[in-house]
Amino acid sequence: MIYFDNAATTWPKPPDVLDAMSYCIKEVGANPGRAGHKMSIRANEMVDNTRKKLAGLFNIDAAQYERIVFTLNATGALNLAVKGLLKGGDHVVTSSMEHNSVGRPLNILEKKGVQVTRVQCSQDGNLDPGDIKKAIRPNTRLVAITHASNVTGTVMPIEEIGKITRGAGIAFLVDAAQTAGVLDIDVKKMNIDLLAFPGHKSLLGPTGTGGLYIGDGIVLETLLEGGTGSQSELPGMPETLPERYEAGTLNTAGIFGLGAGIDFIVEKGIKTIRDHELNLTKKFIEGSPKIPGIKIFGSLNTESRAPVVSFLINGRKTAEIGGILDKNYDIACRAGLHCSPDAHRTLGTLEQKLVRFSFSFFNTESEVNAALGYLEEIVTKNITLPGGEGGCGC
Amino acid sequence: MIYFDNAATTWPKPPDVLDAMSYCIKEVGANPGRAGHKMSIRANEMVDNTRKKLAGLFNIDAAQYERIVFTLNATGALNLAVKGLLKGGDHVVTSSMEHNSVGRPLNILEKKGVQVTRVQCSQDGNLDPGDIKKAIRPNTRLVAITHASNVTGTVMPIEEIGKITRGAGIAFLVDAAQTAGVLDIDVKKMNIDLLAFPGHKSLLGPTGTGGLYIGDGIVLETLLEGGTGSQSELPGMPETLPERYEAGTLNTAGIFGLGAGIDFIVEKGIKTIRDHELNLTKKFIEGSPKIPGIKIFGSLNTESRAPVVSFLINGRKTAEIGGILDKNYDIACRAGLHCSPDAHRTLGTLEQKLVRFSFSFFNTESEVNAALGYLEEIVTKNITLPGGEGGCGC
Repeated sequence: MIYFDNAATTWPKPPDVLDAMSYCIKEVGANPGRAGHKMSIRANEMVDNTRKKLAGLFNIDAAQYERIVFTLNATGALNLAVKGLLKGGDHVVTSSMEHNSVGRPLNILEKKGVQVTRVQCSQDGNLDPGDIKKAIRPNTRLVAITHASNVTGTVMPIEEIGKITRGAGIAFLVDAAQTAGVLDIDVKKMNIDLLAFPGHKSLLGPTGTGGLYIGDGIVLETLLEGGTGSQSELPGMPETLPERYEAGTLNTAGIFGLGAGIDFIVEKGIKTIRDHELNLTKKFIEGSPKIPGIKIFGSLNTESRAPVVSFLINGRKTAEIGGILDKNYDIACRAGLHCSPDAHRTLGTLEQKLVRFSFSFFNTESEVNAALGYLEEIVTKNITLPGGEGGCGC
Repeated sequence: MIYFDNAATTWPKPPDVLDAMSYCIKEVGANPGRAGHKMSIRANEMVDNTRKKLAGLFNIDAAQYERIVFTLNATGALNLAVKGLLKGGDHVVTSSMEHNSVGRPLNILEKKGVQVTRVQCSQDGNLDPGDIKKAIRPNTRLVAITHASNVTGTVMPIEEIGKITRGAGIAFLVDAAQTAGVLDIDVKKMNIDLLAFPGHKSLLGPTGTGGLYIGDGIVLETLLEGGTGSQSELPGMPETLPERYEAGTLNTAGIFGLGAGIDFIVEKGIKTIRDHELNLTKKFIEGSPKIPGIKIFGSLNTESRAPVVSFLINGRKTAEIGGILDKNYDIACRAGLHCSPDAHRTLGTLEQKLVRFSFSFFNTESEVNAALGYLEEIVTKNITLPGGEGGCGC
């Protein structure tokens, strides 16, 4: 099988990821932070080790590793960030290329009196940082922007936006769903106050992991309250981090696995990984003209792209192309809206949707070449899917 | 090592749990419900299989398995239930024996205009269902009660309360944190409308798993919004379950593992497991008089108890006893408040706290006998902990 659905979750994982999960289940299965016994303390050390590795990756001060809190997924982190920060009467600036993990919480907040400006991106998904600056009002509390679109791979001008928000004293939330582990993220250089990341995409950990870095001085209302294993006598959540934002038992096996995923990235080098993945993206884009009627969305320049590429084939249904690739050629990709209707509105593809290929370090050039050949064959031989369109991930 | 901290999380897990997680990571690592390709569809089938197994265990109609939604932990499920249901002006009835996973969200809601009645339990943790009935007001929307205390193991009169709530047309939320997988739970017979459960305690799955059963006809406000992999064009979450309450990527490896945990329970028989664990509880209680100064809290009748037993030793500090058991005898237990300050207020142990032993199917009578002997030795030989009290899980 050729797996080109890495923007949904990466697969395969480095072998050490499963080994770390196994170590947790077999050897360190206690609940971290919930007791004073050796196994609980060891579990907590392992969880904190993953926090420290994340801090290293994102240039967060080593002493501030406890300001990284774990959630079920990046969506949980983004919900905590926007709902924990924004109140009725506040204004937030976001873009027209956001995933539903930012878009939907903001839609809900809008009904509760939060003002939302969605800065329009160009039809190829690019965002002009000047438009962010223009959108700022006296009551703007937050700018929330994806680091890279999960549809077009377009990299947003995070560093420029960070300068604007820092200058204006506004909090800056970055959704690193498509970039953490593959593009450089430096919370200091980029002036990022809140960084939401999934553990199971380019960080190469298992699903069920994600988190939020909460910059020094930022206090969020809690979204979930419950047991914290410390300061239990308080009626609400403690002020200390990470406890304040981690109610209930963590996904310890997942967090152990995430630690191993980050080790793999550090060992290979994030630049090596990025170069490999962007090379595959480039090869696909460069090879695509041989497929009659293909249209690739977003910038064709792979210097400012995450390793994601979406396309349409003229006259062909998106879901059918995805279905043929799966059933006839054993290529796993995603055809649909990719949970990002706003991005599709921006691109003008809300009706047609798009086929998306997304690459990982474990993909190869020969897989890309094979896929190009198959797509050419599907078009030139007018291959269809007997008995239906194939599934569509919307 | 003797592991008596199973009320925090069970350890070890049945071997098939890790095998199921490994199968997910190695063979079915795609994102379920996010694409139409074979691996994503297979991942979704496996996740749904776990829902079906849970439905079987709790006597939920087989056709309603999609009304079981997955969360990071039981705390996430309880937050969703109470915050999704209650609005300012509503009244909720709960008990004085609840865990912070119910207590703290209700404290937060109280500040937002929800009225909360905390029915006082007796000093041994028992709840009179008549007191629940008396607490009901015209604006009572919910009764939220733990199935069994995580401090005393006291089993609450769920079936009687269910008759009261059903008769009054009030929703009934049960926190099955200490009972799912070991005591019988029948949502029909018990008239349970909302059942919150952890996957990693007596259900024997890994941490990072939990969920909420949402009875037919109950619609909750969402707590988290994001990608759902379907109906992506909607501005808010879809009305269909489970998508409505599952924003973002699930902990698939954990859910696969949870399925294997439930298989183990079904294969062994829940009664066999319960009989074994309650026998250990009984042996401990029966053997405890040989420990000078020990006082066991809660009912001594193991017929109405979860396999949890907490105690004090006269004149000795709780944290020190826990520390000595860990360091000198390699027994992992929990000494502290167990995230349940209200329960400790009820028992009169908020200052002294308690040492808790909690048993699983993998514990043995010889471990219980050994622990009894060690405790006797600690008291009779006045063993102390050089250099400190030992850690305390609060």
